[in-house]
Amino acid sequence: SEYTPAHWKTREWISGFTGSAGTIVITAGQAGLWTDSRYFLQATEQLQDSGIDLFKMGMPGTPTSREWLAGQLSTGDCIGIEGAVFPASEVLDWIRFFEKHQIHIRTDFAPYNILWKNRPEIPKHPVYLLPETLTGLSAQAKIEQTRLAMREKGANLTIIATLDTVAWLFNLRGNDVEYNPTAVCYAIISENEAVLFISSEKITKEVSDNLQKQGIQIADYSTIVDYVRQKTTSAETSLLITPAKLNYQLYEAINPQTACIETDVHPADQLKSIKNETEIAGIRQAMQRDGVALVKFHRWLENALAAGETVTELDISTKLREYRSEQKQYAGESFETIAGYAEHGAIVHYGATQESNAVIQPQGILLIDSGAQYLDGTTDITRTIAAGPVSDAMKTDYTHVLKGHIALASARFPKGTKGIQLDVLARQFLWKNGTNYLHGTGHGVGHFLNVHEGPQSIRMEHNPTELQPGMVTSNEPGLYRAGAYGIRIENLLLTVPDQTTKFGEFYAFETLTLCPIDTKLIDTKLLNPEEKDWLNHYHQKVYQLLSPFLSIEENSWLKQATALVE
Amino acid sequence: SEYTPAHWKTREWISGFTGSAGTIVITAGQAGLWTDSRYFLQATEQLQDSGIDLFKMGMPGTPTSREWLAGQLSTGDCIGIEGAVFPASEVLDWIRFFEKHQIHIRTDFAPYNILWKNRPEIPKHPVYLLPETLTGLSAQAKIEQTRLAMREKGANLTIIATLDTVAWLFNLRGNDVEYNPTAVCYAIISENEAVLFISSEKITKEVSDNLQKQGIQIADYSTIVDYVRQKTTSAETSLLITPAKLNYQLYEAINPQTACIETDVHPADQLKSIKNETEIAGIRQAMQRDGVALVKFHRWLENALAAGETVTELDISTKLREYRSEQKQYAGESFETIAGYAEHGAIVHYGATQESNAVIQPQGILLIDSGAQYLDGTTDITRTIAAGPVSDAMKTDYTHVLKGHIALASARFPKGTKGIQLDVLARQFLWKNGTNYLHGTGHGVGHFLNVHEGPQSIRMEHNPTELQPGMVTSNEPGLYRAGAYGIRIENLLLTVPDQTTKFGEFYAFETLTLCPIDTKLIDTKLLNPEEKDWLNHYHQKVYQLLSPFLSIEENSWLKQATALVE
Repeated sequence: SEYTPAHWKTREWISGFTGSAGTIVITAGQAGLWTDSRYFLQATEQLQDSGIDLFKMGMPGTPTSREWLAGQLSTGDCIGIEGAVFPASEVLDWIRFFEKHQIHIRTDFAPYNILWKNRPEIPKHPVYLLPETLTGLSAQAKIEQTRLAMREKGANLTIIATLDTVAWLFNLRGNDVEYNPTAVCYAIISENEAVLFISSEKITKEVSDNLQKQGIQIADYSTIVDYVRQKTTSAETSLLITPAKLNYQLYEAINPQTACIETDVHPADQLKSIKNETEIAGIRQAMQRDGVALVKFHRWLENALAAGETVTELDISTKLREYRSEQKQYAGESFETIAGYAEHGAIVHYGATQESNAVIQPQGILLIDSGAQYLDGTTDITRTIAAGPVSDAMKTDYTHVLKGHIALASARFPKGTKGIQLDVLARQFLWKNGTNYLHGTGHGVGHFLNVHEGPQSIRMEHNPTELQPGMVTSNEPGLYRAGAYGIRIENLLLTVPDQTTKFGEFYAFETLTLCPIDTKLIDTKLLNPEEKDWLNHYHQKVYQLLSPFLSIEENSWLKQATALVE
Repeated sequence: SEYTPAHWKTREWISGFTGSAGTIVITAGQAGLWTDSRYFLQATEQLQDSGIDLFKMGMPGTPTSREWLAGQLSTGDCIGIEGAVFPASEVLDWIRFFEKHQIHIRTDFAPYNILWKNRPEIPKHPVYLLPETLTGLSAQAKIEQTRLAMREKGANLTIIATLDTVAWLFNLRGNDVEYNPTAVCYAIISENEAVLFISSEKITKEVSDNLQKQGIQIADYSTIVDYVRQKTTSAETSLLITPAKLNYQLYEAINPQTACIETDVHPADQLKSIKNETEIAGIRQAMQRDGVALVKFHRWLENALAAGETVTELDISTKLREYRSEQKQYAGESFETIAGYAEHGAIVHYGATQESNAVIQPQGILLIDSGAQYLDGTTDITRTIAAGPVSDAMKTDYTHVLKGHIALASARFPKGTKGIQLDVLARQFLWKNGTNYLHGTGHGVGHFLNVHEGPQSIRMEHNPTELQPGMVTSNEPGLYRAGAYGIRIENLLLTVPDQTTKFGEFYAFETLTLCPIDTKLIDTKLLNPEEKDWLNHYHQKVYQLLSPFLSIEENSWLKQATALVE
């Protein structure tokens, strides 16, 4: 999971470091934390007097943790790790690496239950059923689709160890993980069995009846290791796994005699990424509700700033949550709101704290990236707004980002196209000006599931997954001037069929997100007629789809915010 | 090699099929030729009464040759192939595939010397030295660069089996292969040896003296297999190979105990692709000479058509060769000219024959793709011209291709960018209109070497090689209306440094090719001001750099051909 239940936060327990990424390595005499540039400052503070050294990943001269360890240890030494919390692909890499040094890796080293006083339990929140009126397909039908895809790969057994995939497959949702409506569990699918491995305390009678009616068995969470061991003894077993998404403990339980078919993308993840008509209809409705909340929020913010009220970054998070929670089907935020005023906007993963919490001044740029979970869809939107007067340079930067956003939103491309092929459309105007952003342009988004889901992406990096009709992907170019301001404009895109000609099938994008794009930051001289057309059409659509749900005052604010750009 | 000396054309000898791609499979009772759609018609004709069945690759229902063979053969059967003419990577794939069926592959099956009466000999044309004034670097310096790159990969020995790489490395050129100025040979580089394996008949005293002065040994072509066998017995040997570019006979000679480092791109190929200042200066001069020849040619063609003379596709090849051969440093064509009038232009790999040779009519579209070898550079250019009145649809198509050509030529991008990321720039206007072209947008071009060279490319397919300053790559979007006409506009691009900002290093392209782009085919309403600027600047540069070498009459033609587009 992107978010880890407290039970597994052993890195934080050992070190006090609360960042979302890092590796702790401890030898008899030394200890180190490896983390990336987002967390250099935070880690330096949190590690003070801990006896743990900070290793700044990606800086020249910093060894990788394995290189460092190879230097510390001698032939015959043994490294202990907890196999259950590392991906098999990574552990296999380590084993290969340390084999050369004749250093052994023990993968059952997990002393935390004994050492960690008051260790939080594995969360046990009840799971609930998402009805077919929202999912569009029964669990049974999804299992059959998965089996068909397994057969195409020559497999008759598979392990699913990603929480959102199990949630999608069985039409279940949970509350074990922050922001992701998922539960701690596993699934195994074979030609004649479908088993959900989950703590019985999470299962109500309603859920149990429903699953059993669909032929799904329920087994205790802890029994999966034995189950894998038993099921992989038959010579007829052909097991499909995704080593990057399977923990090493389960990988190790597979009988070495079993034929393993490895894949980078599990067929169930591929199926999950292509939303069906019911899911798409739900997402459209969630976008309308989210848009209504956003209009109320933006109107409130504009008025508060104009009236000289004190508004902080944390107030923005609170207000967004308030307006969204008034909407039907609301089920929480889809991630922690990023409200970054001025230089805070340039910190890509900024989250305001009581200490950093800035007051919005009536000038300059404010970046707000937020999203919600609704029972019928997940939203993720970034808007960058003028808090007051802005400089020409800010307008130029903003307009270049907007031009890239429009170019990607307007893309039309043949079947078979991958995200890396379209990424330049969003970056081209920045590149011509010697600027860039180092994050991806687009990530997949779940249907009332994880706000970051695969397998597709739109990035500078290669990803073999093709963009297909039904996929929902973000469009979020940005530009970050360190110490000054950050700009990002993000909508969600649905891949849709475009045209079929003698040259083949072509696809296009439909923008799903409904919220005005701040025109006060646009240098209209830099937009060509087609770009202005796109913006005006988008604003027209936003107005048409949101105005029926707004008061007269809100409507008049929206009318102005979506006024024609000429 | 892209072009095969007659000695190795065993497929043609067996079948009579003269296409450039295909595989012949013969069993005790049957025989088949597998080839791709370019050659379906030709193969059908040439295989008539041969007893060889045609298998149309890529058509639904056509088995691959290995699938078909697996169906024909039984456990214990044996397949014979000539290891010396297949890449190691391919043979290893076959061996793995047929292992499952318990079918053995013999890789020393080469009965052609006995069966093939009057088999052509391996070509024995003399090689010659390309002086440092043209190459910019001595062979010795290039060998040291290669050794440095080998060390970085942990290798102390490497085999180079691609003719153009050996030619580049030792500053040698030859005449053994059509269009490519290369000789049949191999090279082996170790920490203290550099050996050229070549028939002694090809080596003059001058070449031999020069190589020996630089510490390069010369060994007979046939001795390389034994050399590889001997050199790979030491435990200290760490051998760098590119299995896709090494024939299986040499791969098999490697001692199985030897540590092999496999790479997709040989470091020498990487070095070769980045042209040095001397090579770039040479290429610029070759472009000027080629441009002068092209102006003379286009003026002749325009006048001939206007005067109602009979001009055929083959006349065009002849005239181009004539005008080019008048230029200094001319050393031949770099590939067979494609002159395709009307529907012939839509056949991407068209080569006019006496049978197909069309007369150019005073209407419609003519596509001409041609190139030359000069001692200081290789050219490759496509122009599409109006032979007379053209339809509005033709103009729209042409202008969309031109817009893509301009977008790619104007690209500016960060260090690290790969061809697949920029490819959409050339295709975007076609995709919006439901059109496309199925070939690559750009291939590398050698310095007085192969007109198609790696490792970089600009294509819809993934290629991990980054575009780097000094690389020369083609920019050739096209559009093909089957049965009607073909359009392609091709210039060569040099990657150059653009700017360095807080966001990193940025690169851009400089267009090297100098020849007017036919403006009679442009619908200027479809060009935006930036695109017109690009075209006018390009034409201004063409005029400035070519006019000093032209007669008054030629100059006045060029003035008109490069007149401002408004």
